Formats: sequence, structure tokens, C-alpha cells
Amino acid sequence: MAFQKPTGTQDLLPGTVEKWQFVEEKARDLCRRFNYREIRTPIFEQTSLFERGVGETTDIVEKEMYTFEDKGGRSMTLRPEGTAGVVRSYVENKLYGEPDVSKLYYIGPMFRYERPQAGRQRQFHQFGIEAFGATDPAIDAEVISLGYQFCIELGLKGVKVEVNSVGNAAVRAAYREKLLDFLLPMKDSLCKDCQSRIHRNPMRVLDCKTDQEKFVNAPSILDSLDEECSTHFEQVKKYLDEMGVDYAVNPRLVRGLDYYTLTAFEYKAQGIGAIDTVGGGGRYNGLVGEVGGPDQPGIGLGIGLERIQLILENQGVEVPAVKPLDVYLVALGKAAEQEITKQLFKLRQAGFSAERDYLGRKMKAQMKSADRMQARYTAILGDDELSRGEIALKSMENGEQRTVKLSELADELK
Amino acid sequence: MAFQKPTGTQDLLPGTVEKWQFVEEKARDLCRRFNYREIRTPIFEQTSLFERGVGETTDIVEKEMYTFEDKGGRSMTLRPEGTAGVVRSYVENKLYGEPDVSKLYYIGPMFRYERPQAGRQRQFHQFGIEAFGATDPAIDAEVISLGYQFCIELGLKGVKVEVNSVGNAAVRAAYREKLLDFLLPMKDSLCKDCQSRIHRNPMRVLDCKTDQEKFVNAPSILDSLDEECSTHFEQVKKYLDEMGVDYAVNPRLVRGLDYYTLTAFEYKAQGIGAIDTVGGGGRYNGLVGEVGGPDQPGIGLGIGLERIQLILENQGVEVPAVKPLDVYLVALGKAAEQEITKQLFKLRQAGFSAERDYLGRKMKAQMKSADRMQARYTAILGDDELSRGEIALKSMENGEQRTVKLSELADELK
Repeated sequence: MAFQKPTGTQDLLPGTVEKWQFVEEKARDLCRRFNYREIRTPIFEQTSLFERGVGETTDIVEKEMYTFEDKGGRSMTLRPEGTAGVVRSYVENKLYGEPDVSKLYYIGPMFRYERPQAGRQRQFHQFGIEAFGATDPAIDAEVISLGYQFCIELGLKGVKVEVNSVGNAAVRAAYREKLLDFLLPMKDSLCKDCQSRIHRNPMRVLDCKTDQEKFVNAPSILDSLDEECSTHFEQVKKYLDEMGVDYAVNPRLVRGLDYYTLTAFEYKAQGIGAIDTVGGGGRYNGLVGEVGGPDQPGIGLGIGLERIQLILENQGVEVPAVKPLDVYLVALGKAAEQEITKQLFKLRQAGFSAERDYLGRKMKAQMKSADRMQARYTAILGDDELSRGEIALKSMENGEQRTVKLSELADELK
Repeated sequence: MAFQKPTGTQDLLPGTVEKWQFVEEKARDLCRRFNYREIRTPIFEQTSLFERGVGETTDIVEKEMYTFEDKGGRSMTLRPEGTAGVVRSYVENKLYGEPDVSKLYYIGPMFRYERPQAGRQRQFHQFGIEAFGATDPAIDAEVISLGYQFCIELGLKGVKVEVNSVGNAAVRAAYREKLLDFLLPMKDSLCKDCQSRIHRNPMRVLDCKTDQEKFVNAPSILDSLDEECSTHFEQVKKYLDEMGVDYAVNPRLVRGLDYYTLTAFEYKAQGIGAIDTVGGGGRYNGLVGEVGGPDQPGIGLGIGLERIQLILENQGVEVPAVKPLDVYLVALGKAAEQEITKQLFKLRQAGFSAERDYLGRKMKAQMKSADRMQARYTAILGDDELSRGEIALKSMENGEQRTVKLSELADELK
């Protein structure tokens, strides 16, 4: 009986996994530079956390969660996104009591029961950051600039940020009325989804893929902003200008969730034919309170790593798939084999990546193996060399070969 | 309503998570040097994979698995260990068709519904390696030496490897009879677990914690080895000798699982009072066939990362908990604040870790913040300096302060 991986999951194998490592190392290095520190929360949480923190009427909670009862009869759910668990942890561990702004990042698997398609898996992976405790527009600009710099340093082409302000609750209530005045007269001409959504969440209607051209003259939420929201937004833009972040204001960018306030943003990159969305985020000043914490502001971003891999591939961005080996040791004969096994360990202890053959193959096959591993050097030991305490060192770049002392092999490789 | 993490899971927060990063970076760097490449398999798999690959009569499968039905009615299980998924992936992706030995490593979460205790969680984390396709004793020695070197480089004290050979199926059948001859006469004096286990798995009886002193004169499996098994074991030991790995033969080391063959080993370190087991592994030449693959040999090791953290802490090994910041920027006044936000981004783009205040705090509080973040430098910008295009740069190590050009700030930090 042969087994298969579950539908909608992936095996990341050598040759592919290095591309993931590259992206994740970039994310970690950026977080180091921007002074975000990692947080790791459990793979599953109480189901009610997501009902509260993501929203009971969202597609995620209604249709897509991996929910199960544990052996103690408690309802648990594999996390469908990253923010709820981080907010829960921020509250439960009282990080709001610390003197500095809590600047956190996470990288890890998430789970949604969706129909699998290109760039969308049931087990998928996100890189996200969250900053709690500050309302300063400088931190909005910081969060936006981190995701922007991530896209740039990965080598993505056509990177652009769209930004908007979705105001506060009062602003949105006023805007909602204006928007309904605009949308209701055309209700019958809208798609089914939009018709059903028009009263529940009219701002989401503007997101509709099919009806975009009908909304060209829709009222802009930016005209409804009060002075505080407007000042905040102006300052965010001013910072982005000075940083040189390539952005455009998109007043129809609303992001789905009710708890978003003020700044909302998305990253775009050049796709195949159309523009691809890489990820996005926004400010959520109500969320910490929603999951039982004190009234603390927050802002974050999330970027899908399957999506990043797909765009990198579509754009033809070269990402290293193999880490070159420092040296491949070849033994000719039994005594030499004993010796190189020892030398191998010594080289590895000294920090070099080193390999030998384990399949009793002939020298030619071993040299091919060294080639596949992109070895910088091969070192060949026969009985003659062994008796003199030497080894033949061959550069795989230029083919030059010289004899070096076995005891000085590590020094010669530097 | 406040939410809590599920029982038996942990939040890894800044200040702790860096210790995990340190251990994982060490594991990844060792794998690079030993030429093991990462594999990532899904967090959950078909339940039947673990029934087959771990064993239906094991405690893990009988009592401890997180099993659930997905929305398609399929029985899925959160992986309770790492090997089964890697073997499934090796077979499904036909890695056995590749010319070189498949040398793989994984790091990630596993799940068992157990009673939580120190160093044992329901969501726990393992670092493991697997090498498929080679029977050469040199690879047994390589696997053992990688785990050994991991413990040494982490700074663990009293590291020792215990090694044994559990032979092949024929050897074990013969040994089983000899062992039963020894054990059955004392059956009534053994603990309840051992009494029930004596026929099912007499080798596991030797593992019993309570009855150790009764087994001093038990027959040794090493006396039952046939010539092939014996030669293999002798060669493994010879390699370990030459590598300088500190090991001892323990003929009672059997490891639980039926599919182990030949080499078995465990890592020990100095614990509190007693000796701690860090992890272990062995050869499993029958496992690939068991999960539906061709008859390919394999060997691997697994190390529990919660256990590693506990031993590091118990032994008082110092692991860095904060990554020092390169520079903390302080602004005095509105115009300066605008400028440092821009400078901050420039420094981060140039590769430095840099931070500023986001809470409108006074300079003194900001300097404390810089201290907490172990900043190497603070850079202070007032209106005077700004008008001259300069900034005051202060070393936090020796307190020295000098004025540098804003445009040369990055160069000055090198």
C-alpha cells in the first residue's frame, strides 16, 4: 500500500525548499533590521478565538476551518490565519504591560479547507508582522515600508503599494449611508454576490471583480474622513513620500474585516497578464479589545508565501536552488576510505560543507555526484597519497589540481 | 472574554524565541555542513500512514493521536512524529530514483495528546534527519556524529552516545528466545507493565525503569549477532573511534519500534541528579517497504527541542536572548522626527538594525529603550544638528559622542 499526501498539501523537497528558505531568510533579516521579534503561537487554538477574532460571518469561519474535538471534548481549530493567535498571545501574556511597542513577526503554516488551485493550498504559509500599542502614523509607514522592502529585495518586478484610509467607526457609518445612496439604484444590475452583500457590507461591494466599471463614480471614503483620520492619513503618506516608497492612493481599497481602522494597504506586483496582489494589511485598533484585551491599537500585514513563490516563478526571478558544497572527498581503496571518513568529520567540525560517496561507486560516478552538488573542490585520496600524509585537491571551477598535506586540508579550503 | 492557549501548547515570545532560533540555526548549519537538505511534509497526514508507519499497537497510535475527519470525511491525523511523513514523501516523490543517497532533515511541530509535564508538550518540536538508500556503516557513523556534534556545539555538558546493534529479524528472533528463557523464571517479580509486555515485546522489558538491577545478567543481543551484523557494528564503532565521538556500547539499548535494524543509539547529557536522554535514532531497513516503497534501507535520528531547551536551562548554558540593535535614533522636535523616520528606513535598507520611539516619550525614556534593546549606538537629532545636516552619534559601549554628517551616518556605523 502506497500513501499519498492529503489533497491541498505539499511536500517541499530539496531543490524547491531552498527557494522557501531564501524567502524566509529575507523575511527574518528584514525583521531584524526593522526590530520586529518573532512570536510563535500554537498551530491550533480554541475555535471560539477565531469566531471572535476573524468574525463569525466570514467565509473563513463559516466554511473553511479545520475544526475538531480533542480527546478532552474541547473544540479546537487549526489556525486559518495568523493575527488572531498573536493577538490572543499578546493579551494572555500581558505584553501590553511592557514599556516598548510590541513589534512581532511570525512565519508558519495556516489551514483553510478551500478548493486547491495555483498558489492556494489547504495548508498554506504566511509571513506576517503585528505592531501593538502605538497610534503614531510613523509606525503605519514603517509596517508598509517593511513589506515594500521585502518585495523589492526579493527581486519582484512592478512592485507598488496601494494605500487608503478606512477611517474610524463613525466615518464608516456616515460613508455607508452615502455609498448605499449610490449603490441601491443600480442594485438590480449588480452580480448576485453583490446584491446579497449590499446591506450587510456595502464597502465590500466596491471590491467586486465583475462590476468594477460601474463604481467609477462611487463616492470616495476619503471625502468622508474627519479631521483626525485625515491628518493621520496625510502624515502616513508624507512619511512614505520621504522614504521613497512607490505607492498610490486607492480609495476603493477596503480590506474585508470589520475591525480595520484608518490605514489599509496592499502590495501589487507585475503578474501574468494582470496585476498580482502579494499581500496586504492595515490598522485594527478595535481587535485587541475584541478578544478580551485592553483598548490597545494595532497594525499588521500578512503575505502569502505560496503566492510569493508563484510570482517569483512567473516573473522568472532566479532564486538559488542548491547550496554549493565546499568539498567532495573521494577515496581510492579501503584504507583511504577509512581516512576520508575521519577527514570528513574534521572538515565539518571546522565549518565546511563536505561530502563523500556512500554507495561504493566508481570514481567517475563520484565526480558526477560532486558536480551535482556544485562542489567547489574535490579532494582525492589514494594509497600513495595516504602513505605520504597528503591528498590531491582539485578546483572544480578551473580544474587546477595540487597536492596538499592532509593535516592542512582545512586551511587550504579557506 | 479573554482567550487562553490550549493546554499543552506554548507561546514562544521574544526573549525566549531567540533561544529556539539559536538551536534551530545550529541544526540548520550542521545539516549544511553534513550535506543534509531540508524536507517539509504536511502538518497532517492520512491516519492510516501512522497506523502503518508508527505501528498500530504503539501507545502513540492507540492513545495519543490528534485524529479528525476533514470536511470530505477523510480521517486525518496531526503528525505525532516526523519519520512517517518523510518516508511517505520519499516514496511518493520517488526520491529513491535519484542517483545520490537522500539525506534529509526536518524541523517542526508534532502533536501527541499526553499529560503535559516539564519538557513534554502536546504540541512539541523535533529536529530530525533521515538518510535513505545506503547500508554503508560510514553513514551510520555520519548520522551518529551529526547528533553528537549538535549537542557539543550547543554547549551541552556530559554529552555521551550510547550505541548498540539490534541485529536483523533473524538475529532478533533467536535473541528473543534466549531472553524469554532468562525473563520467564522471574516473571512474577517484575512490574505489571513488564509482565504484560514480556511475550509481546521482551526486548522492551529490558528498558524498564523500575527493574533495571534484575537484568544485569540478561543475555546480550551482541552475543546473538550473525557475522554480517557484527561486521557492520564493528565498522560503525571503528569510524566513531577515529572521529573521536565519545560513545559507549549499551547492549540493552533497544529503541521501541519493530522496524529498527542494526544500529541503534541515544544521546545522553548531564541532567539534574540523573542523566538526561537528549534524543536518539537508528537504522530502519524495513520501514520504506512497510509504507509501500521499494526495499530501501534508511537510518535517522530525532531530537526533541523542548528537551534541548530544558537541558540548556538546567545546565545553565548561556544562550543569547536578545539580538543587539545597531542604532537607536532619537529626535528632538517635529522636524527632526520627520527626518529620522526617513533616516531609519535608509539605515534599514543599508542592512542595519535600527529603531526609534513611537510613543512620544521623553529623551530619557528613549535612552532606556535603547538600553533594553542593547543598542550599540544612539543617534540624536535636534533642530541645530538638522539645520547643519548633522547628527550626534553616541557609542553605548564607552559613552563617547561625536557629530557626523547625516549623509554619512551609515558609513559611520560600519
